[in-house]
Amino acid sequence: MQRILTKDTTKYLGKKVRVCGWVNSRRDHGKVIFIDLRDRSGFLQVVFTPQDKKVYQVAQKLRPEWVIEITGEIAERPKGMENPKMETGKIEIKVKELKVDSEAKTIPFAIDTDGYEIGEEKRLKYRYLDIRRKRLQKNLRLRHQLVKFIRDFMDQKGFVDIETPLLTRSTPEGARDYVVPSRLYPGKFYALPQSPQQYKELLMVGGIERYFQLPRAMRDEDPRAERQPEHTQWDFEMSFVEQDEIMDVLEEGIVKLTKHLEPLTGKKLLAKPLPRLTYSETMKNYGTDKPDIRPEPKDPNILAFAWIIDFPLFEWSKEEKRWDPVHHMFVLPKKGQEKLLDTDPGKVISTQFDLVCNGYEICSGSLRIHKRDLQEKVMQMIGLDLKKAREQFGHLLQALEFGAPPHGGAAPGIDRLAMLYAGEPNIREVIAFPKTGDARDPMMNTPSEISKEQLKELHLNIEKEKKKK
Amino acid sequence: MQRILTKDTTKYLGKKVRVCGWVNSRRDHGKVIFIDLRDRSGFLQVVFTPQDKKVYQVAQKLRPEWVIEITGEIAERPKGMENPKMETGKIEIKVKELKVDSEAKTIPFAIDTDGYEIGEEKRLKYRYLDIRRKRLQKNLRLRHQLVKFIRDFMDQKGFVDIETPLLTRSTPEGARDYVVPSRLYPGKFYALPQSPQQYKELLMVGGIERYFQLPRAMRDEDPRAERQPEHTQWDFEMSFVEQDEIMDVLEEGIVKLTKHLEPLTGKKLLAKPLPRLTYSETMKNYGTDKPDIRPEPKDPNILAFAWIIDFPLFEWSKEEKRWDPVHHMFVLPKKGQEKLLDTDPGKVISTQFDLVCNGYEICSGSLRIHKRDLQEKVMQMIGLDLKKAREQFGHLLQALEFGAPPHGGAAPGIDRLAMLYAGEPNIREVIAFPKTGDARDPMMNTPSEISKEQLKELHLNIEKEKKKK
Repeated sequence: MQRILTKDTTKYLGKKVRVCGWVNSRRDHGKVIFIDLRDRSGFLQVVFTPQDKKVYQVAQKLRPEWVIEITGEIAERPKGMENPKMETGKIEIKVKELKVDSEAKTIPFAIDTDGYEIGEEKRLKYRYLDIRRKRLQKNLRLRHQLVKFIRDFMDQKGFVDIETPLLTRSTPEGARDYVVPSRLYPGKFYALPQSPQQYKELLMVGGIERYFQLPRAMRDEDPRAERQPEHTQWDFEMSFVEQDEIMDVLEEGIVKLTKHLEPLTGKKLLAKPLPRLTYSETMKNYGTDKPDIRPEPKDPNILAFAWIIDFPLFEWSKEEKRWDPVHHMFVLPKKGQEKLLDTDPGKVISTQFDLVCNGYEICSGSLRIHKRDLQEKVMQMIGLDLKKAREQFGHLLQALEFGAPPHGGAAPGIDRLAMLYAGEPNIREVIAFPKTGDARDPMMNTPSEISKEQLKELHLNIEKEKKKK
Repeated sequence: MQRILTKDTTKYLGKKVRVCGWVNSRRDHGKVIFIDLRDRSGFLQVVFTPQDKKVYQVAQKLRPEWVIEITGEIAERPKGMENPKMETGKIEIKVKELKVDSEAKTIPFAIDTDGYEIGEEKRLKYRYLDIRRKRLQKNLRLRHQLVKFIRDFMDQKGFVDIETPLLTRSTPEGARDYVVPSRLYPGKFYALPQSPQQYKELLMVGGIERYFQLPRAMRDEDPRAERQPEHTQWDFEMSFVEQDEIMDVLEEGIVKLTKHLEPLTGKKLLAKPLPRLTYSETMKNYGTDKPDIRPEPKDPNILAFAWIIDFPLFEWSKEEKRWDPVHHMFVLPKKGQEKLLDTDPGKVISTQFDLVCNGYEICSGSLRIHKRDLQEKVMQMIGLDLKKAREQFGHLLQALEFGAPPHGGAAPGIDRLAMLYAGEPNIREVIAFPKTGDARDPMMNTPSEISKEQLKELHLNIEKEKKKK
């Protein structure tokens, strides 16, 4: 018999149906056993009476989180027994057949709470149980809606979804790379991408004109509470556009996404069109470049998206005694600013635009440099050795000489967006299998040691003396 | 002025428009210069006459692959000058303004051919130029349509798109893992996933019931012509289903996908519903378990998808003198076959089903074991040490004790599917930035050496003596 979802059982009054799921709770009223059966769609009250001895005997053994399959008749609950809080609160199923798919040991924590009260280590160790709770089910399904909407929107706007490699090249700029030793080329390594920045620019040189992808980006950072080694981006790049056109695409996406998710989230935009603040006024008024522009008291159902523009291209690093890029070294200066590069680099305004929301940075975007001479000049200004830069970024510099179109893009963080729409305090709550703040997975118990054979094949030795750091 | 695509210029006869793109070719007829301008949508004939001296002087310098922006009037071509092969063959643009965005050096190979004639090393080194060719543009856009359709279909069927980690744990089964040294935990490693198999099973334990994802899977294999270290999968898993229900979902997807792509590919199914062949009859009739069931002569526009079912659970390894799983160790035996595990393991028929097409394996799928005792029994039968297995797969074995639903799934290869629909001989033709058969990227020049500082931070030494293998 075809299984139906519990939420659909209301349509089958008086009919025989088959439902499957977990024993959410059990109550015995005299001889009658009541089970709340849970499936992905909701709950259904299951009634076992002693009449059918065979079924009843099995029912007596049922405990929370057992997995069962039930065939029975959908009936109205007796008057006064309705539960208006339940979608199926007016009905119940009278069991004809019961099959136990799996028994369950007592689970290590409650899953009928929101779970914030449970220690992270424990939640992550038993993440497969933790995600049974309503809040996480809701968060993961909301995240699905979010990425689905973004992909549909980008498709509609003519962007092509293109995958870029995960095994790429280590480059010295940015954060620390995760690296992958090559077995075939002893002593050589791949690097996991911190972002597909170079690939998407190369796709623009390749004539794709409108690229998007929801790729994973990985950074080997030091431990901190909100650290996650893996992030997902709403990555896109466009050719033949001005800065405003990139911002317009993203703004349209955010406005429509917020509207689309509102029935699930109850969250609205503070203002539309999104406010545009300059970097200097933002620093003056808020003392930060990721301001929370909601008025006091902060309303958690308001999403105060805003743009920050007119960033400086460089900031002076006192320690390194050099100019560092405010965003990254591929950012194009604003039109007419190039001359300042020689005379007053700190004054150069760039085409960078940041999207912020409720005090979080959602993304930095910009137009990119599409000429080799300017790119090399910026590389030198930020202290890269030109010879080395040509070795490490040779492919990109060369690509700029074969007909590179003007282009730009951005890469909003999907985890952060999902967190804000879900109203969660932390991105771990919208990631199915997150790691701890110090980059461990207590469930899989990783990172872990690998075998001597694996190390030998990779031509690697572990420095023993430093092992116990 | 807003830029329009060349394919839309036919709607602007007599009007002034702005177009952008690459100089595809240049012909001088007397004093008149003709350019074919190429953008992502097609081509447009551009006419420069000596009347406007300033524009004409710049036009004289134009060379293939320069990037230009043109403002001008769309006009009918003179009688007899139409090109019926071009979508915009009846019109041309008379230039008022010309802007050169980028000049271009002579490119290292032709891009107006299909490119098969060019050596792979060269094509991959300049991949950003290689993808300018029509064939690759078409392939990448077809792949976008393919993944878009699959995601829409899975969403419609109630599957939730959930991302699983890339930094996971190395396990001894299957192919070789790519590993990632941990800086924070000296001597320990993450592994890149060969598939999200364990995670998707844990999601089923977590009550998701219908999961899908188009994840990357990575295997460190030995060099061979068609090797790619990274693959993309159409990965899905379902709870409370029989083998047929999984096959039905996938079959519906394949049938609809083929129909959806037909206007782009011209390819049709050989038979519908897809033929179901048993493993034993397939081996007998074709001598392989991935048969090409098209009749002779093979029609390249026919996609002969078919199912292979009733695989044995184990095959005897003569070298290792033990039973190896035919698919993997999580596959559930067919109902009623469990007893044979003790008496005649080679006779056990499994719930594995393979999807094949034109001689290629598209995927293996199956129901999975959802009870710990059976899982441990199979682990021991394939020669795993139970103590070690409990250490390495402890999370999964434990999860099966907390109420695991019956479940199963599959993971068709996206690269292979895209290759078949595109009519390409090799998956490299449908991957934007593939690696060579020996796992190099000649464009990025990776794998490459990393700095001494990086090695030191990772507490790794490279075994010098073996470096020159």
